[in-house]
Amino acid sequence: MAVGPGTLPTLHPVAGFRLGTTSAGVKTPGRQDLVVMKIAPGATTAGVFTQNQFCAAPVQICKSHLKKAMPSFLVVNTGNANAGTGKEGYQDALDVCQSVAEHAGVALDQVLPYSTGVIGEKLPTERIMPAVPAAFNALTEDGWLDAANGITTTDTRPKAFSLQFDYRGVLITLTGISKGAGMIKPNMATMLAYVATDAKIEAQLLQSMLSRSADLTFNRVTIDGDTSTNDSCMLIATGASGVEVTETDSELFEEFSNALDKVMLELAQAIVRDGEGATKFVTISVEQAANSAEALKTAYAVAHSPLVKTALFASDPNWGRILAAVGYAGVDNLDVDALQIWLGDTCIVENGGRAQGYTESAGQAVMSREDITIRIILNRGNKQETVWTTDLSKDYVSINADYRS
Amino acid sequence: MAVGPGTLPTLHPVAGFRLGTTSAGVKTPGRQDLVVMKIAPGATTAGVFTQNQFCAAPVQICKSHLKKAMPSFLVVNTGNANAGTGKEGYQDALDVCQSVAEHAGVALDQVLPYSTGVIGEKLPTERIMPAVPAAFNALTEDGWLDAANGITTTDTRPKAFSLQFDYRGVLITLTGISKGAGMIKPNMATMLAYVATDAKIEAQLLQSMLSRSADLTFNRVTIDGDTSTNDSCMLIATGASGVEVTETDSELFEEFSNALDKVMLELAQAIVRDGEGATKFVTISVEQAANSAEALKTAYAVAHSPLVKTALFASDPNWGRILAAVGYAGVDNLDVDALQIWLGDTCIVENGGRAQGYTESAGQAVMSREDITIRIILNRGNKQETVWTTDLSKDYVSINADYRS
Repeated sequence: MAVGPGTLPTLHPVAGFRLGTTSAGVKTPGRQDLVVMKIAPGATTAGVFTQNQFCAAPVQICKSHLKKAMPSFLVVNTGNANAGTGKEGYQDALDVCQSVAEHAGVALDQVLPYSTGVIGEKLPTERIMPAVPAAFNALTEDGWLDAANGITTTDTRPKAFSLQFDYRGVLITLTGISKGAGMIKPNMATMLAYVATDAKIEAQLLQSMLSRSADLTFNRVTIDGDTSTNDSCMLIATGASGVEVTETDSELFEEFSNALDKVMLELAQAIVRDGEGATKFVTISVEQAANSAEALKTAYAVAHSPLVKTALFASDPNWGRILAAVGYAGVDNLDVDALQIWLGDTCIVENGGRAQGYTESAGQAVMSREDITIRIILNRGNKQETVWTTDLSKDYVSINADYRS
Repeated sequence: MAVGPGTLPTLHPVAGFRLGTTSAGVKTPGRQDLVVMKIAPGATTAGVFTQNQFCAAPVQICKSHLKKAMPSFLVVNTGNANAGTGKEGYQDALDVCQSVAEHAGVALDQVLPYSTGVIGEKLPTERIMPAVPAAFNALTEDGWLDAANGITTTDTRPKAFSLQFDYRGVLITLTGISKGAGMIKPNMATMLAYVATDAKIEAQLLQSMLSRSADLTFNRVTIDGDTSTNDSCMLIATGASGVEVTETDSELFEEFSNALDKVMLELAQAIVRDGEGATKFVTISVEQAANSAEALKTAYAVAHSPLVKTALFASDPNWGRILAAVGYAGVDNLDVDALQIWLGDTCIVENGGRAQGYTESAGQAVMSREDITIRIILNRGNKQETVWTTDLSKDYVSINADYRS
């Protein structure tokens, strides 16, 4: 199940960035489950990673390799997260990097590994390493869609977005892919996402731009409140367009930042729309908060409430459950009589109770939509935060109870 | 669905405390849904209430009346929570109190109201007030079981516990009832609970004993992480036994405190065992924590993880999900290599990964039980905290999606 059609736009190739996808049979024989990405020399790469303290072996290696060198290769396997695998798992991830490094004739530090899938099982390096050459043979700048499919796990569809904008006669391209459907409550980025651009961006600036953008996009989506052990989000700037983004050129900087946010947000929201068992795409906007922290606390309390999520699944305008979640979010000295809660364009709560003139049918009309916006106006400041989430359906339970994931 | 047989022990009457149950047809015609409790003169009463800032009208009135006088009557209705009902709801609750006060010839302040049921609908005082006399006619010291049934909502069975202990030839009795099955993540007490004893206890001491005990019992159970707007837990000491509990007599104080904790814990755990859609009763014990806060953070992260809860429902020893939840609980500088996770008597995680010698079948054996204990040994201090919770089943979603509650 998923919300919306999930049709993909044209995925523009990014000069200097190639992707190759093949099958290593990590978990399922014949499945396309191994992706190698090749980054042209001179490119810069930035990454943000899970805050989960049980962070997986590949995440640990990504962080340490990024400190030492700019990467030339990214290698991604699905079907196995190589998380909770201790020292052996760390060595397994290094072995996969080593096989890529040897095949390409680069240093070990120039290879970054990524794994996603079931936690706690040994990475089958004996199947992954022999498949590396086939992934190299498949490398092409047109490999985005194959890679988008290649990194999926319980996803029901590939996730990708691409856009171009003209800057003084030069076309700048941003293209990205992401994956993830469950264990989604990113505390940095979500699951796996790779965005490449042919703009030229100095490494430190690239990192700050990625961190900022991830915070507004991937860090604002939640499906089940479970933060994964493997979340990784990468941004690669090949510079092939010859146009450099710097903070001094504020016009280009702003235009590029907006384009980046758009790509990142599309990729993040695509994960929510494909959330496990999702039948609704829910935008929760907390407005007029005293500060960002209380806005987010409130938004996540509502986004994670099983009672709100099951009411969303039922298309039941059970506004009392939203009100209760706002009430326990932990906002100090909340004046419940001063706040308002809106379901779409219908005010459901004001003066501490059901809004004047609210009718069940008006609420019903909003709740039966596929895309629902809940606005919570705290009326105690001017901060605003938005998070995106899904409902909690019987299928979510089936997906996570009936199959080992 | 519920865990365990749910058989009730003998409910010993408490001299000086009478209960009367009748039907007011609040939501369902003919249903026993109105309970009046009469407290003999000279008794002391203590209460703890929800921390939800949208606390319901009756909770607001309970707090204000308790400040002014010791109560003589408690009046409880189910079928309607009278929460999120604004000023009108506040007046409705006062009207019910007034009808009890007039019928009994006591002051308005001596009556405390309680409501539980759907949020946001007007309290049908026109049906509740006429039923008050019938509740009075039913008042009896043997009314515990009827009252236990009378305060239930989505509960599948009544919840009650009773014990007696001998103190220097005098039998001291504690008897209590509770209700609740969903919207259970107490931040004080859970839903409704009433415990009475014939011991004599000075009001301030009674309040501190109740607060302390609720913190160790009702405040340690969670079903769905949703803190209700109506949680109330009351402790009444009639003094009819003539035995006074004071802090100076440490032997009796300790014996009574233990008895109180036992009754409160039985009532709290009964709510978990009857959790909406529950098929498992899960004890989560976090040990060797640096402080109580991090122990509770870890315990609740595991207890609220939809992935852990669905794995419990599936009897799937998916220890990676427990590990992931511990990893995102927010414990600073957690040494993942130093901690251990135990499923019952089976060590599942150590040295940052799957425990040596752990076998799927060993984990499976524990997970297929109805009562499951998850022990998380952080190995960074000597604090220990325990919470009790349930699994997340398809029935939980059905119960909350298919019916308005």
